[in-house]
Amino acid sequence: MRFDIITVLPDLLESPFAHSILQRAQKKGLAEIVVHNLRDYSSNKQKSVDDYQYGGGSGMVMGIEPFANCIEKLLVERKYDEVIFMTPDGKTLNQSMANELSGKENIMILAGHYKGIDQRIRDIFVTREISIGDYVLSGGELPAAVLVDSIVRLLPGVLNDETSALSDSFQGELLDAPVYTRPADWRGHRVPDILLSGHEAAINDWRHEQALERTKQRRPDLLE
Amino acid sequence: MRFDIITVLPDLLESPFAHSILQRAQKKGLAEIVVHNLRDYSSNKQKSVDDYQYGGGSGMVMGIEPFANCIEKLLVERKYDEVIFMTPDGKTLNQSMANELSGKENIMILAGHYKGIDQRIRDIFVTREISIGDYVLSGGELPAAVLVDSIVRLLPGVLNDETSALSDSFQGELLDAPVYTRPADWRGHRVPDILLSGHEAAINDWRHEQALERTKQRRPDLLE
Repeated sequence: MRFDIITVLPDLLESPFAHSILQRAQKKGLAEIVVHNLRDYSSNKQKSVDDYQYGGGSGMVMGIEPFANCIEKLLVERKYDEVIFMTPDGKTLNQSMANELSGKENIMILAGHYKGIDQRIRDIFVTREISIGDYVLSGGELPAAVLVDSIVRLLPGVLNDETSALSDSFQGELLDAPVYTRPADWRGHRVPDILLSGHEAAINDWRHEQALERTKQRRPDLLE
Repeated sequence: MRFDIITVLPDLLESPFAHSILQRAQKKGLAEIVVHNLRDYSSNKQKSVDDYQYGGGSGMVMGIEPFANCIEKLLVERKYDEVIFMTPDGKTLNQSMANELSGKENIMILAGHYKGIDQRIRDIFVTREISIGDYVLSGGELPAAVLVDSIVRLLPGVLNDETSALSDSFQGELLDAPVYTRPADWRGHRVPDILLSGHEAAINDWRHEQALERTKQRRPDLLE
């Protein structure tokens, strides 16, 4: 699966894509992540990509041309399943959306910055607008990294333990049960006896109860 | 405002904190972001921080001791307003939570990895659990970066234009109106005439209508 990310801050994305699961997925050839510097597609001398907004008001707006130049160059090279714009007013990312997107081949992601991007980019090129949550960030770079991470870890062969992704929170209908590891007693704080019992069926029952209880307390909306 | 982030992958967080608004805030002395390598607090020879989970099952669990060592060292150095654990079953981050946290002085953030962290860390040390959304990621590092970014941009003096943060989506009750910049005509796609009219009151009315319309279409829940 291939991701092309267009951003005015390519360096910001360097370390998140160079470590952990995203690094492993790229080394294994399961994911290709290409970051494009929007400034390389600006045709003016100053390599600027933003300008004052029509109608007045604070905040700069990213112009059409650099995005259009980069997007159109990529569209000539291959077919894209989606051209996604990361924006707080997009559809909120959830696990089923990540699952769906993990079945695609080529995804282009636009990361905005400043006050926003010219609406015509959204109208003409963008096929889907995604938000990672109801909060405002400095730009679309971290949201792009979050989106890519949520998708790539679902690709077959990326996680070491094939069953891990399936037992995550949100893949079922319940949150995870609490987990424990050694030592069994830490300054008097003990691991629940049931987990040390060796009775697999009883442990599974306990985990299900705990998961249900935690979901009821924290996220009753998931049970509706 | 100071952030201490405890993670097994400190390098992953390097570039997000070294650019853009987070870099500027640190240079101006408005935010201090310190990343701690959890492995430095492991007392075994292999510097391991995870172990098999009690009761069986796939996925490794991060143990108590390294976290406890690091947290207790920091707690001796200063008082923390919150010890936050980033987890998909935490309370979902939203703008009002970011606003509230931007009034704190010292925040500690624990980034988990693998299957999760020993529940006793959460029970003993953590004061607040936060999720950035209903999706699963490789670890708590990107969520920690998202949380810090959402908070730091609200600190007085961080954004160049003081009014910018206030006119963001979610700070009011409506999503943003569309924005446009030059050229007024791009391959026949024109900027709405009203924005070129110079009539400030009419422009404000149009923007309010557009914001209302967009909110109705995309996020009717925000109007309830």
